[in-house]
Amino acid sequence: MTDYHFITANDFRQFSQEVLTKTDLSSNDADDVIEPLVYASLRGIDTHGVRNFKSYYVDTIVDGSIDPQAKIGIEFETPMSARATGNNGNGLVASAWGMRLAIEKAAATGIGMVSIRNSNHLGAAGYFAYLAVEHDMIGVSMSGHLYGNGTSRGMAPVFSLQPMFGTNPFAVAIPCEKQPPFVLDMSTSVVPVNKVEFAKDRGESIPIGWCLDENGNPTSDPATAKIYLPLGGSRETGGHKGFGLAIIVEAMTALLSAGWADGDNGYSQDKIAHFMGAFRIDMFREPSDFKVAMDAMIDSLHQAAPAAGHDRVYVPGEIEHETQQERLRTGIPLSDKEVADLLALSEQFDVPLNLLR
Amino acid sequence: MTDYHFITANDFRQFSQEVLTKTDLSSNDADDVIEPLVYASLRGIDTHGVRNFKSYYVDTIVDGSIDPQAKIGIEFETPMSARATGNNGNGLVASAWGMRLAIEKAAATGIGMVSIRNSNHLGAAGYFAYLAVEHDMIGVSMSGHLYGNGTSRGMAPVFSLQPMFGTNPFAVAIPCEKQPPFVLDMSTSVVPVNKVEFAKDRGESIPIGWCLDENGNPTSDPATAKIYLPLGGSRETGGHKGFGLAIIVEAMTALLSAGWADGDNGYSQDKIAHFMGAFRIDMFREPSDFKVAMDAMIDSLHQAAPAAGHDRVYVPGEIEHETQQERLRTGIPLSDKEVADLLALSEQFDVPLNLLR
Repeated sequence: MTDYHFITANDFRQFSQEVLTKTDLSSNDADDVIEPLVYASLRGIDTHGVRNFKSYYVDTIVDGSIDPQAKIGIEFETPMSARATGNNGNGLVASAWGMRLAIEKAAATGIGMVSIRNSNHLGAAGYFAYLAVEHDMIGVSMSGHLYGNGTSRGMAPVFSLQPMFGTNPFAVAIPCEKQPPFVLDMSTSVVPVNKVEFAKDRGESIPIGWCLDENGNPTSDPATAKIYLPLGGSRETGGHKGFGLAIIVEAMTALLSAGWADGDNGYSQDKIAHFMGAFRIDMFREPSDFKVAMDAMIDSLHQAAPAAGHDRVYVPGEIEHETQQERLRTGIPLSDKEVADLLALSEQFDVPLNLLR
Repeated sequence: MTDYHFITANDFRQFSQEVLTKTDLSSNDADDVIEPLVYASLRGIDTHGVRNFKSYYVDTIVDGSIDPQAKIGIEFETPMSARATGNNGNGLVASAWGMRLAIEKAAATGIGMVSIRNSNHLGAAGYFAYLAVEHDMIGVSMSGHLYGNGTSRGMAPVFSLQPMFGTNPFAVAIPCEKQPPFVLDMSTSVVPVNKVEFAKDRGESIPIGWCLDENGNPTSDPATAKIYLPLGGSRETGGHKGFGLAIIVEAMTALLSAGWADGDNGYSQDKIAHFMGAFRIDMFREPSDFKVAMDAMIDSLHQAAPAAGHDRVYVPGEIEHETQQERLRTGIPLSDKEVADLLALSEQFDVPLNLLR
């Protein structure tokens, strides 16, 4: 069973909308869950797309760990900023809400920044940053998780083997004129957890340099990967930079939102925290001039001579854009595990599923 | 001649102030050149301190490549933002001006962002971000340089061996209550150019993983290092992230400031560009609560069990703070080359120099 199935983006939208509304999520909130998954799957970010629909976003409602009726609550606000609690609702819903609010504030004042505590998995950070681009804004999104007493699987600080952070991703999106938008979407570890999980799903090994096992030895087996190295790897090759970026993400998400807070047992974080920001390019110059200059920068990078074995240089967001064009034609490819998940949901919720072969 | 000399921070301040004012720099501008160097040298960032005083900041005025009388010109401004030209003046002067303006705007509105074109070497990016911290702000500084047609020494894009960027550094500084301020100051390449130059000064080799020679082969000889690898190294271990960060720095500096501009021979950048930003923590919450939470986050990271061969975990800015306390007592250690540079300036400008042994 290695032949792939496909699902069109619109068939997935319709199917997942019906499933989610049967879990007690509102139709609007369901859209906010679905669109980031479609974005990721169309753009080839298969680690953060349809793959996660059942386990991250449906099962968690069914088992009661996420509240589908959660109302997001603003706890402090200025014309340019807000902090809010997600009240343990879906992380995609809270993040989409946060980015819409950031864009609305930026449209009114020039910049908007929203920090959100007590939320859940963000999905592909790039999706939220990308929402700013059509407004001629630069967008930023982040998601942070610090385990105050350590955890079994996550990013360890430089000079330690104790996982302390999630892989604390962030994304920055910048509009271009004719080139596809620039989108850098990165974990501050070498790779996100899902990339290792994804290799495990497929029975593949992982490169040395991504993770260590629980004893601190390099591993190529995704099943034994417990310690995620910070971007840069060892101290000598810049691991303190990945570690430092993870701390910045934490400060912007959990600390600005007051989600990392003092309690009976000292400080701890209430689930996952996010940051969404956007600012208007016309705070500096005419957006079309800026976007034409972005095109020219990317053109000049395309002119850089390719190294042996490579055809050309790609800037972040470009391969994803090309994949999106292709998958709008072919549909989203699904692994056996993803097909099995969707079929299980189809039966569980009595919703018809349309797959292509 | 391997025994070190020392100079106290105040003796260096007095000496360099006299030298710079004799080059036609104003006394205030001289202070703006000197303080970032003192900051770097006291904090152990020897690559960006006294080492560079003669070659980067005095010789360049003497040889006419930098204009000591340059007036910074604002080209567009809003209550929260500005773009300006440095008019080919000293990069430290322009950056200090830019950060003061960003802090002033943030004090009035919540946030300030200043993008500056046609400037010169930034020095230690961390210094400028650090200026925001005492105002209960989070500070950001960046410096970007794109060579539209490539250059002989710099960062190459992933999948290319053609150097296109400088090492495009940025820094983020975040205040704490009792802990020293968090300061991440990083090139978006594995290491900055100066770190390789510094090894060369001392006749030391460099680790494999920092640079390639002009043929694209890994090198441990700083004299043959031409291609600077982006943070993350190869594509497999996240080199596209360092490359993407370099593009973001470029967009925030040269593109927002209109320094990357269309001319007779297509687009090119007028020297080096900077970005300085600051925002007030009280846009989100009471700064003292935030700073106490920063302390608690750092405390929890300090509790992470150290790996074999290490005593403890350090967060960015911490080793630098400890070094600063020590060097305020001992003075700044100087290599033979640095001593020779200062003695040459002492003779050239007839300014007395006070060194310790």
